[in-house]
Amino acid sequence: MLALHYPTIEKILTKFIENEVKKFGFKRVVLGLSGGIDSAVSCSLATKALGKENVLAVMMPYKTSNPDSLNHATLLVKQLGIGSEVAEITPFVDAYFKQVPDASNLRKGNIMARARMMTLYDISARDAALVVGTSNKTELLLGYGTLFGDMASAINPIGDLYKTHIWALARHLEVPEPLITKKPSADLWEGQSDEDELGFTYQEVDELLYFMVEERLSDAEILEKGISKVFLDRVKRLVVRNQYKRMGPVIAKISSRTLGIDFRYARDWQVVK
Amino acid sequence: MLALHYPTIEKILTKFIENEVKKFGFKRVVLGLSGGIDSAVSCSLATKALGKENVLAVMMPYKTSNPDSLNHATLLVKQLGIGSEVAEITPFVDAYFKQVPDASNLRKGNIMARARMMTLYDISARDAALVVGTSNKTELLLGYGTLFGDMASAINPIGDLYKTHIWALARHLEVPEPLITKKPSADLWEGQSDEDELGFTYQEVDELLYFMVEERLSDAEILEKGISKVFLDRVKRLVVRNQYKRMGPVIAKISSRTLGIDFRYARDWQVVK
Repeated sequence: MLALHYPTIEKILTKFIENEVKKFGFKRVVLGLSGGIDSAVSCSLATKALGKENVLAVMMPYKTSNPDSLNHATLLVKQLGIGSEVAEITPFVDAYFKQVPDASNLRKGNIMARARMMTLYDISARDAALVVGTSNKTELLLGYGTLFGDMASAINPIGDLYKTHIWALARHLEVPEPLITKKPSADLWEGQSDEDELGFTYQEVDELLYFMVEERLSDAEILEKGISKVFLDRVKRLVVRNQYKRMGPVIAKISSRTLGIDFRYARDWQVVK
Repeated sequence: MLALHYPTIEKILTKFIENEVKKFGFKRVVLGLSGGIDSAVSCSLATKALGKENVLAVMMPYKTSNPDSLNHATLLVKQLGIGSEVAEITPFVDAYFKQVPDASNLRKGNIMARARMMTLYDISARDAALVVGTSNKTELLLGYGTLFGDMASAINPIGDLYKTHIWALARHLEVPEPLITKKPSADLWEGQSDEDELGFTYQEVDELLYFMVEERLSDAEILEKGISKVFLDRVKRLVVRNQYKRMGPVIAKISSRTLGIDFRYARDWQVVK
């Protein structure tokens, strides 16, 4: 795994936030603070980039959420001195669940993630604040997230950092200790743990993804590194199978300039007014 | 405006649907049928491509929706002989509205559009059916739609067709007459009309967009065509301002291969199993 120089990373990412927010014609940002490490890192970076008065953290608990999630989010809000609000998703999520009482945990988790997106984007419109993303590269590659849910944002400062990098960057940014040391969990249902659910640790999968994506090693070369074939096949399948979560809708090409294919309007051509 | 040969367009778009659905590893599709012309065209194409047993139309009325919307959607469902279901969004949308009683119509419209996306994607997961998009090129260019709402889909057969083309294709596909002749409306609130809200007709704006996007005319050349400067400026601003709705989250680049920038995993490399 590449060792990064975190003071430089901090500089790159705060400049990124500053530039992109301006280009989009915004001054303020809003983001969902889950109490986990990824949103904590995004939030710290946004605060350093834009100043505490321009960052709003939104906590969106469901009735079964672990109370630690809200407590840990509050720790960070206090440390950074940013504004925050709590927007319970329980009433409308439960109204939906009532219609699909036998939905699987996976479906329920997606509903919750999308209800949070809906809430966050509503606040974004209310406050003219851009939504900052909180998905890291590991989960984007594995497709371990909800499309149009927690994966939705306008700009994402941490999407090119593996989970292993996020932990190190969190230490550099002095994110409160409990957020760094706790077990990663989407907290969509009680006792959920990312690593239990995935069946491997972030450290293991980051090492493999690094071989695959950054070093472009062949399967044979990866197996020589001591990675098991079962693990390699499983992760490759996840990366391929979830590609759709990393791209916009595929549009059928008819005309000479098709959106997302050969019409890529350069936002930088002119300032958004 | 380019005259298209609609029998050929039909062939291209049905093959597109067939291929893309297969590549994504699916057999069936689901789509939201609003009673408007765009979703009617997508739905007819999907039925021709996959057979009526592989298409599910979901009607998602809100309590203030015009009853014509459901009636018109039902007309098409009967004509095509496809499966359908009605999923009321009222209970959970109202649960949200209760928390934000003074939200603007725009915010409320976005909530409704996203509640429909949430419902549609839940059905998609329930039935292992891919979500087919229903946004046309005119509204994608103008940003006249809700990001992560009605603009969300996996594949979009009509995203490269201007509204003017959609009308002609609908006639070719023999979409029921009332869906073709009625005034376009998102039906998010009573009496809403696309053209009233936009302040111009689709025919006018399609002509201008065609000059801008397909023929790549300069501003001076467009003005020579008799387009007013006010109209040109307004439409250009919409196209630029809403570019963010046509792209995924902007990810800060750190590594050698960044998602959405230089890591574009070719889905076609291998079959999704």
